[in-house]
Amino acid sequence: MKTVKTGIVGVGNIGTAHLHSIGEGHIEGMELCAACDISESRLEYCRSRFPKVRLFTDWREMLDSGIADAVIVSVPHPLHAAIAGYALERGIHTLVEKPEDSRISAAERLNGIASSSDRVFGIMFNQRTNSLFSRARELVRNGSLGELKRSVWIITNWYRTQDYYDSGSWRATWSGEGGGVLLNQAPHNLDLWQWICGMPVEVTAFCDVGKYHNIEVEDDVTIFARYGNGATGVFITTTGEFPGTNRLEISGDRGRIVIENGTLKFWELRESERTFCFREKKDGEELAYSYSEFGCAEESGHRGILCNFSSAIRFGTPLLAPGTEGINELEISCAAYMSSWLGAPVRLPVDAKKYDELLDGKITSAKRVVKERTGDRHGGYLPRWKVNW
Amino acid sequence: MKTVKTGIVGVGNIGTAHLHSIGEGHIEGMELCAACDISESRLEYCRSRFPKVRLFTDWREMLDSGIADAVIVSVPHPLHAAIAGYALERGIHTLVEKPEDSRISAAERLNGIASSSDRVFGIMFNQRTNSLFSRARELVRNGSLGELKRSVWIITNWYRTQDYYDSGSWRATWSGEGGGVLLNQAPHNLDLWQWICGMPVEVTAFCDVGKYHNIEVEDDVTIFARYGNGATGVFITTTGEFPGTNRLEISGDRGRIVIENGTLKFWELRESERTFCFREKKDGEELAYSYSEFGCAEESGHRGILCNFSSAIRFGTPLLAPGTEGINELEISCAAYMSSWLGAPVRLPVDAKKYDELLDGKITSAKRVVKERTGDRHGGYLPRWKVNW
Repeated sequence: MKTVKTGIVGVGNIGTAHLHSIGEGHIEGMELCAACDISESRLEYCRSRFPKVRLFTDWREMLDSGIADAVIVSVPHPLHAAIAGYALERGIHTLVEKPEDSRISAAERLNGIASSSDRVFGIMFNQRTNSLFSRARELVRNGSLGELKRSVWIITNWYRTQDYYDSGSWRATWSGEGGGVLLNQAPHNLDLWQWICGMPVEVTAFCDVGKYHNIEVEDDVTIFARYGNGATGVFITTTGEFPGTNRLEISGDRGRIVIENGTLKFWELRESERTFCFREKKDGEELAYSYSEFGCAEESGHRGILCNFSSAIRFGTPLLAPGTEGINELEISCAAYMSSWLGAPVRLPVDAKKYDELLDGKITSAKRVVKERTGDRHGGYLPRWKVNW
Repeated sequence: MKTVKTGIVGVGNIGTAHLHSIGEGHIEGMELCAACDISESRLEYCRSRFPKVRLFTDWREMLDSGIADAVIVSVPHPLHAAIAGYALERGIHTLVEKPEDSRISAAERLNGIASSSDRVFGIMFNQRTNSLFSRARELVRNGSLGELKRSVWIITNWYRTQDYYDSGSWRATWSGEGGGVLLNQAPHNLDLWQWICGMPVEVTAFCDVGKYHNIEVEDDVTIFARYGNGATGVFITTTGEFPGTNRLEISGDRGRIVIENGTLKFWELRESERTFCFREKKDGEELAYSYSEFGCAEESGHRGILCNFSSAIRFGTPLLAPGTEGINELEISCAAYMSSWLGAPVRLPVDAKKYDELLDGKITSAKRVVKERTGDRHGGYLPRWKVNW
């Protein structure tokens, strides 16, 4: 099987990290062949580190050149779907950074293209490689937890300073990013949430804009979700708390799991709670359960997703994070925005056209101008992109 | 100082426990002198255990008799304020079971009577005697946590079977109890929540009626709260999950506390997060903090509140749980009901008259009839009334 020649569109923070991963030979079966950026200084960076790589300032030119078998799209969110779709249409395997796009309408179009393409389409949900979340998913799917009743994710350890937001003019803007913590940091968790618990049918959200930072988008969110079976969920996230919490609790008819501090705790009931509730007549009698704990294996992270993408192209290995699944967490975040804007619950799937209109209104009325500060992209995956406990 | 002659109105589950506490001499300075119940079998129970105690079937008669210096009101919630107010007006020190009443209007009237009375008026918030909650309150009030940002209380270990609800015809009805888990179990936590974090200014709630039990009131609730300073709060409770969770997290500008499993964990920041956020320019630099843990002393519980009430009467000791503070948690629960009924956020203080109208509508349209099962009142404080971890 030949090596996959891979190009990268967008060599900013995360793109530079991918550049090094592939360019330094860490991704089996992948070879860095091209990079594209609109910034001359970023291209200069690529040139100095990887002199053999072909450089482009126009992504269409790169994708049309025929040089790449595969492409990684790591540009600002609102451009994801357009570039990924263009690549797939030209027969190029595509890995898009999260979120799939900032708009559901764009993600829908991209998924349409992907469904009629025989190329591999993946998305960088690197936290899916964490063993605790895949185990939680397994416990839900194999019925160990029984029918779900509630999930609560407090994911408030996405701390960011004002300086972080000032590091790119596209950051934390409706036009450049399409949102705040829900569109940038929390997509990992929103994706895992739906990956493990399934999709809600209705969302009510409380998004606080610029609460902790000088930004035009939200940096503090509480979501209340309802599921088809009557279960409820709460999702709390912010970039304004420290040290913050990362704690996911899921309870069902047969037990409860809590994931926190790198451990999954599992209380497994010996009997269905619903049965016990209507059977037991003795006051104070408690349901019996067994308790177990699972530690966290080292997550393979971004490189794990890249290796999986490479294997999918070369051997047909199933993707851990298929690109078309990117729309799910985006549905939740967009429903949350819409609910917050309208002050009402929003049913899923979201009306994509109405969402675009509302987002366009936000973009038009936005005023913030930020001077971009550049220069501190070191090429490694930052610790904050991993699962943090 | 003479002994406080104490009567009890309502000798059901909790009243019987108080009967034994006082009747068996566990409450210093208190002497059991009278008991009142409409049930002949409960009076027979009192007669057999405490033959010298005077028995009444009419609480007015008991309060008018002049026999009691103090009274404990442990009848169904909607009667609390009427009986407590009547007692205070007759110069009788009064301890009312939680909640203060099922209606804000009634609690307001009672507080009015209490404010013009020189008698001691307390309320049975026995969980205030838990050292972890008083320490949390201290950390908030002395500024150790800095300005509050968020509180999240998952208090889902109030598990109850259907049989529990069938044990009294007043239980889990709009007329007999005035509500479900919010009015019966969660008042402890709602009170502690406001005791520690202060009162919210707005509440949005999602109350699910009869979700896990055959009852006409709610047994599953999620509350989203907003505070005057912009902080937010989430409160989740149910009687339908097992084993459930009891975890309170509070984060502020100077740190975070988590109370769970009988331990208070405290992360104390070395610097204001708000200062750090706008000062720090180095990517990935973290706020420094110190970490400490506090264990849980044995809580004095119901007896602690009774002893405190006795001391307050005899020596003027300040009350740990003044009766007039009962209205605070009731404001939150009633705002939650109203929000759930109206499908909209509700500002505090609640419109008490409007609340009465809405509650009356619930009572009128209720249909459930339950056959009362009696006989298993053993006279002790049940473990489930303590703080459970």
